[in-house]
Amino acid sequence: MLSPSKQDYIQQVSIDCVIFGYQDKQLKVLVLKLNFAGELYALPGGFILQHDSIDQAARRILEQRTGLTDIYLEQFRVFGEPHRTNNHVMDQVIARHKETVGEALFNQEEMDWLTRRFISIGYYALVDINKVKPVQLDNDKIYDQLDESYSWCPIKELPTLIIDHNEMVQRALETLQLNLDQKLIAFNLLPETFTMKEVQELYEAIYDKPFARNNFQKKILDLNVLERLEKKFTGAANKAPYLYRFLKEVAK
Amino acid sequence: MLSPSKQDYIQQVSIDCVIFGYQDKQLKVLVLKLNFAGELYALPGGFILQHDSIDQAARRILEQRTGLTDIYLEQFRVFGEPHRTNNHVMDQVIARHKETVGEALFNQEEMDWLTRRFISIGYYALVDINKVKPVQLDNDKIYDQLDESYSWCPIKELPTLIIDHNEMVQRALETLQLNLDQKLIAFNLLPETFTMKEVQELYEAIYDKPFARNNFQKKILDLNVLERLEKKFTGAANKAPYLYRFLKEVAK
Repeated sequence: MLSPSKQDYIQQVSIDCVIFGYQDKQLKVLVLKLNFAGELYALPGGFILQHDSIDQAARRILEQRTGLTDIYLEQFRVFGEPHRTNNHVMDQVIARHKETVGEALFNQEEMDWLTRRFISIGYYALVDINKVKPVQLDNDKIYDQLDESYSWCPIKELPTLIIDHNEMVQRALETLQLNLDQKLIAFNLLPETFTMKEVQELYEAIYDKPFARNNFQKKILDLNVLERLEKKFTGAANKAPYLYRFLKEVAK
Repeated sequence: MLSPSKQDYIQQVSIDCVIFGYQDKQLKVLVLKLNFAGELYALPGGFILQHDSIDQAARRILEQRTGLTDIYLEQFRVFGEPHRTNNHVMDQVIARHKETVGEALFNQEEMDWLTRRFISIGYYALVDINKVKPVQLDNDKIYDQLDESYSWCPIKELPTLIIDHNEMVQRALETLQLNLDQKLIAFNLLPETFTMKEVQELYEAIYDKPFARNNFQKKILDLNVLERLEKKFTGAANKAPYLYRFLKEVAK
């Protein structure tokens, strides 16, 4: 499954991805339900090929497990407690797989590789939730027995995830909050065009607090990164809110 | 030397430390001159024991190579390009050692371990430069043949460092700039008491730009993290600037 015997992968290092989306005025995270009796939830993750940069590895893992490509993706923190992976998750996974499928998921060599301590590099991604539909495009069949389904889970209603993945989500959120103004990345979560009210609702979802309308609008417009579009002609055109578009070239 | 055959360390993962100090109105970085003919400069770094958390590993490496303990230390970025360590640094180090000392620095097993690709976790530290005097306290004799001397090098006059260590310094500086206000960490670079002018000069050194005196003073005082001390009695007491002290409990 993982071909660890080929030494294709760096040992004891993994990558896990916190993928943020925004929908129904809620900040959401893409959660993976593992394919076992009972309920095991996890962030999409994987390993680093010897010839991969860590950024390439993160993009490959995301594409293989979710089909997502060409998205805003950035490392945010390393999780390196020595006992973080010692919570018998793999034992559970393996026992449940054997119950369900009737055969072993990993051979002994794979088990030895997988059950050592792992240091995990956390990445976070921001996507327009309406544009992406996570699917499995795993041509290498690495994860095909492991993954069952994906769901966009409101960040306030996350289930218990395996290992320290809940802490990863919390740390990723803190990084997102810290970087929001400097890096102008929030617009990755919005559709192509949006109203100022929608921007404000997004910021309120990320920071989990309300903003004063006038101040917020001034602050966002002062960033000089939005283009105001013509209002569409409707019967009540002058009451329609303006639509804005993010000037992507500014952020690059 | 490294005992890699004992599998004490995690393979292919290293830690490198960017240690910032402030002196003579300049931001400085602790640079290590390696013990070889010619000049090789590096950041202090090392490896992660299987039972270390990555934070513990960073503290242990710093203590072994520089004698520094109990300092502000935080991870800031992973350096994971696949060819970052392929620049024959180890070959140079080994060749020069053999020339100088007349014997091999590493045996073949150690060489195989050391010359693979390494992913490095960057840490940055902030110290009061007047309080610390880097010395080698390496009881394990891990680095005693490798390190020659330390110097505090102005960040604008850094020599060429091995591998991607110059990029590490640049990235650490960007993180410091980004975190300065949110985390109130700059005061780690100052002595116990300081004038407002000294705080401003420190910020100017970190951001490499001047600040307007009145605005700066207001901004810093509005943080509510400084205690103003009594002026010392001198002949011209009312011209003496106030001294301030950082209220450490605020930041914790």
